[in-house]
Amino acid sequence: MFEFKTVRELYEMFLYGEELEFEGLDMIELEGWVKTNRNSGKIGFIALNDGTYFKNIQLIYLEETLDNFEDAAKLTTGSAIKVTGKFKLTPEGKQPFEVEVTELVIEGKCAEDFPLQKKRHTLEYLREIPHLRPRANTYLATFRVRSVLAMAIHEFFQSQGFVYVQTPIITGNDAEGAGETFTVTTRSDDNYEKDFFGKHASLTVSGQLHVESFAMAFRDVYTFGPTFRAENSNTSTHASEFWMIEPEIAFANLEDDMDLIEDCIKFCIQYVLEEAPAEMEFLNDFVDKEKTLVSRLKAVLNSEFKRLDYTDAIDLLQEANVKFENPVSWGIDLASEHEKYLCEQVFKGPIFIINYPKDIKAFYMRLNDDNKTVAACDLLVPGIGELVGGSQREERYEVLEQMMEEKGIDKETLQWYLDLRRFGGVNHAGFGIGFERLVMFMTGVSNIRDVVAYPRTPRNLKF
Amino acid sequence: MFEFKTVRELYEMFLYGEELEFEGLDMIELEGWVKTNRNSGKIGFIALNDGTYFKNIQLIYLEETLDNFEDAAKLTTGSAIKVTGKFKLTPEGKQPFEVEVTELVIEGKCAEDFPLQKKRHTLEYLREIPHLRPRANTYLATFRVRSVLAMAIHEFFQSQGFVYVQTPIITGNDAEGAGETFTVTTRSDDNYEKDFFGKHASLTVSGQLHVESFAMAFRDVYTFGPTFRAENSNTSTHASEFWMIEPEIAFANLEDDMDLIEDCIKFCIQYVLEEAPAEMEFLNDFVDKEKTLVSRLKAVLNSEFKRLDYTDAIDLLQEANVKFENPVSWGIDLASEHEKYLCEQVFKGPIFIINYPKDIKAFYMRLNDDNKTVAACDLLVPGIGELVGGSQREERYEVLEQMMEEKGIDKETLQWYLDLRRFGGVNHAGFGIGFERLVMFMTGVSNIRDVVAYPRTPRNLKF
Repeated sequence: MFEFKTVRELYEMFLYGEELEFEGLDMIELEGWVKTNRNSGKIGFIALNDGTYFKNIQLIYLEETLDNFEDAAKLTTGSAIKVTGKFKLTPEGKQPFEVEVTELVIEGKCAEDFPLQKKRHTLEYLREIPHLRPRANTYLATFRVRSVLAMAIHEFFQSQGFVYVQTPIITGNDAEGAGETFTVTTRSDDNYEKDFFGKHASLTVSGQLHVESFAMAFRDVYTFGPTFRAENSNTSTHASEFWMIEPEIAFANLEDDMDLIEDCIKFCIQYVLEEAPAEMEFLNDFVDKEKTLVSRLKAVLNSEFKRLDYTDAIDLLQEANVKFENPVSWGIDLASEHEKYLCEQVFKGPIFIINYPKDIKAFYMRLNDDNKTVAACDLLVPGIGELVGGSQREERYEVLEQMMEEKGIDKETLQWYLDLRRFGGVNHAGFGIGFERLVMFMTGVSNIRDVVAYPRTPRNLKF
Repeated sequence: MFEFKTVRELYEMFLYGEELEFEGLDMIELEGWVKTNRNSGKIGFIALNDGTYFKNIQLIYLEETLDNFEDAAKLTTGSAIKVTGKFKLTPEGKQPFEVEVTELVIEGKCAEDFPLQKKRHTLEYLREIPHLRPRANTYLATFRVRSVLAMAIHEFFQSQGFVYVQTPIITGNDAEGAGETFTVTTRSDDNYEKDFFGKHASLTVSGQLHVESFAMAFRDVYTFGPTFRAENSNTSTHASEFWMIEPEIAFANLEDDMDLIEDCIKFCIQYVLEEAPAEMEFLNDFVDKEKTLVSRLKAVLNSEFKRLDYTDAIDLLQEANVKFENPVSWGIDLASEHEKYLCEQVFKGPIFIINYPKDIKAFYMRLNDDNKTVAACDLLVPGIGELVGGSQREERYEVLEQMMEEKGIDKETLQWYLDLRRFGGVNHAGFGIGFERLVMFMTGVSNIRDVVAYPRTPRNLKF
């Protein structure tokens, strides 16, 4: 007679179902955790969250009808309970429905020193209890959105026939020479010849080089996995371990690459707004600094991503009536202040900066005919800065070889990568999205430590 | 006037579209790689694969109409081309359609020493060229299925509201003490206090302990990420780096866990058979040793997974009229020959063995009332053996604490894990699937090195 329901099911019936569905719904069973509990001696109210949905459900319990009213009244925040009760629609109430409890079983009490009491905590404090903070609203919303966003990525690529390739985490190449790497070893000295793999091994900084070989078989492929940087920096955007999405498309140039990036970002925004509306509303109102998260995302969704040549960008910056801290001249890597000015002041929307000087970009990017720039693109979005970096790849063996020499990349360990150009190599392009950066863009959360389950940063590995 | 098409689009129109769609389809453009090329001087045939679909498309080129007939005739296997031509349905032919080429552009020639010529190669040989082997049929099929299977996993869990949690790869806990681990360091000695994280760090062997904390917030969660074992074993089922799926469900016991496992495996089979029919047909006919892959999978799909108590399993083995190499007595860990006998001879289908002796299982598994066994389950399937391992988790603080003491698990570094039991802890359960094992089960491929893009095994890290 008791129908088991999750809070998600009830809200979905309410939001998307027909009124009829609620008929016949009488006695239901629920399980979850007490968020708040108050009572007046005769009547009590519990806000119950069962983790399946962002919002709580209100439980009412009465001294008159609940045998263990006293025990219920004493329940503290965080306790786990199972209840059965009468489901009621409450069209006049603050909440759409409530449950009048007829039976309550305590599944797990919560100790008095539970740190997540009703009062608000700083995010800094919550970072010290990563095993408990997922129960706080900010994290309930953020980690649900992170999960939905991961699904959006897979959905976007798989629906277009892309093959998901899980590139290796342990690698013998130091890939693109991008920053410092962690060593992976079973020894306590540096005799790597006697080590597990018979040579020095490190944690990957990118799956790109490996995934390119799959683009030469499947045409359209993508990675989605963890990458690592052993950089000793403690900023709000750096973590030692983070996830990257790296698509690679064959028979494609920089224009195709940018089209795909634009489609991908827009798909993700649309998907998250549709699949996590309650979470997005909360993040907009309580987490985003300017309380404009949703409108910012919708603006990106409805804008056309402009494309601006690096050389033109430099001209614009030099003509600007603004005093930049970092001097501007052709050849510099754009600083955050420059990107902000172009994106937020001049174009007031997402822009791709393209065709960067070859000296500030990676060896595998395709050399343009001017011999000075490469077919690279960075996507800048308002409020975030660089969200995506991509490029057409150098498909000409000799040019790639020369670029490797110029940049001091070891050819011997990457001969296999060079060889991809000898065996039916074609125009191809790809990009990389830092997944955490994308989550921050989508949630308005401003510190990377708050979008990762158990963040890894220098000298921080307690859990 | 030229409509660009992928081979997948053409086959999908043919298989699922309406005949009408082909009307109006006249001149089309295709890009891809030459699989075979033969000609009689006047007329030539190219089998073109563009990576989007497992099957090739036949191109016909005529000396009479193709300007660069000579160049076309010289194209070797592996070369990349772009063609335009006339699309033709060929209802009497071996293939459903073909393209008569009017223009052919060579995008990338393939050097003479291309190792993937038409002749068959051994898998051992192909393992030495992991950057090229994805273009061989066995791998085109296997890696597409791997990708589709990954999507099946996400689809299965997300459609039921599970939250995908990316648990950390670098960890300070040696988790369950499951096998040897890799050290992660930026030093060349063992002074870990001065190391990047200020303590010894290793690569994770499981995300379970970390994800349990999220089950206490979201109820239903799962991980899907890489895990590592520094075991020095060279078998066809061991790799140093592999991916695991680890779901965790709150308010659940062992029965709920097994229901979820059964649903999950069946969903995956159904999904792959539907989404990759051409690949599955090939794997059945050319890769599976017994050429019974698809019928085996369908048998699993249509069977009810039996549940057998470990103690009853021991009885059955002791009564069996079979001479086992490994002697049977209550308390032993079942050997492969025992599992095979039970699964293939006695039950002739998938079975769960449940309630194992506590001494042979991990510390976090829930102690049964007999004080001798734990609420664990292993799923055995014919031809593969153990495919999934799961358990209900110990939710009682004191019992868990005692199990940790018995098994010599360090309580201090896992105090946070123990604390989950103090703060509204509830019955919960979960399981782990080795993703590569699942891919092998689904493809009939018998060596783990052939289902991983760039396999990592002892002394093997060339790429």
